[in-house]
Amino acid sequence: MNQKAIFQLSYGLYVAASKAGAKMNGCIINTVTQITSNPLQVAMTVNKQNLTCDLIRESGIVSVSILSEKAPFSLFQHFGFQSGRDTDKFVGVPFGLTKQELPYLKENTTAYLDCKVVNMIDVGTHIMFIAEVVDADVLSNDAPMTYAYYHANVKPKPQNDANAPKKGWRCKICGYVYEGEELPADFVCPLCKHGPEDFEKIE
Amino acid sequence: MNQKAIFQLSYGLYVAASKAGAKMNGCIINTVTQITSNPLQVAMTVNKQNLTCDLIRESGIVSVSILSEKAPFSLFQHFGFQSGRDTDKFVGVPFGLTKQELPYLKENTTAYLDCKVVNMIDVGTHIMFIAEVVDADVLSNDAPMTYAYYHANVKPKPQNDANAPKKGWRCKICGYVYEGEELPADFVCPLCKHGPEDFEKIE
Repeated sequence: MNQKAIFQLSYGLYVAASKAGAKMNGCIINTVTQITSNPLQVAMTVNKQNLTCDLIRESGIVSVSILSEKAPFSLFQHFGFQSGRDTDKFVGVPFGLTKQELPYLKENTTAYLDCKVVNMIDVGTHIMFIAEVVDADVLSNDAPMTYAYYHANVKPKPQNDANAPKKGWRCKICGYVYEGEELPADFVCPLCKHGPEDFEKIE
Repeated sequence: MNQKAIFQLSYGLYVAASKAGAKMNGCIINTVTQITSNPLQVAMTVNKQNLTCDLIRESGIVSVSILSEKAPFSLFQHFGFQSGRDTDKFVGVPFGLTKQELPYLKENTTAYLDCKVVNMIDVGTHIMFIAEVVDADVLSNDAPMTYAYYHANVKPKPQNDANAPKKGWRCKICGYVYEGEELPADFVCPLCKHGPEDFEKIE
């Protein structure tokens, strides 16, 4: 099997957000798709390790902020490379509230969806949520961010400065470097939670 | 609700193919996503009206040909705008066979996935298939086709010739024109099976 084939699938990039009780959180996901038109339903998959996954399971509601090409790398660091268990991710971030009173990003987004979960499917490391879109709005005319655009234009290029590790394994998603000869088969990136298949050897 | 928000989601374009008994068929879909890495699983959603959906349900196996930006409009017409119940879509189309002996397109594709269904979820008009990738290969270095690229560069522009209908509703997906003042709320495009939300009024 040539694992690289799977990288040819195309995705957008999104912040999925939810809240339960007093806790509100959001995380980066890339797997939002429309699955039916009538009723208007979407599917999305969220890693079980993410606090946002717990909040969606508890509340049964989720918002999706559709990121635009203007979204800076810092937004991905903020919502993707830290946990809402350690920080309140919405402090200092301009957000609005959907009809269901979930936060959505007002900047660097083209549109948002306000969704009510109708089915949850346990797919192992992740939960797939199937949700009905109960409200939605367009926020800008900017182009939606794709995963391909993120890799080509947003993610910082590896640096060749004197302090950069000279050997090890680099996460292709966030740039984290594991400084060791062999990457453990069950390694999980401490920044973005991706596995060994997303690491490349630094030559 | 602003329905246009849902058009901001990003997709690739794919031919999903299967076979059961002597019958082999494929159709255009846009909803393939990786949902877990370990095991390597993908999700895809297929309209119940499509013969390919029946074949996947019956056989439990499906291939995904990931289309490249070189795929011409005729390929979308061939696999998307006619039914395998009326024709053998693979006649005259160069195809290979996966390990599970499913057809995949050898031309206009960047890669293919050979998948075994592990779960089927009825989502109303469509079935969502969750499948393990049992084999995969990369076929070219061309860029994968996105839905946005298809709309901007592949789909023919509306023509302004004398024979073109002057009023009615045009399908934004395939260009089919419904010649009537009001589009029925339950209308389904006879060519590409999309609903009223994908039609625009011809002014």
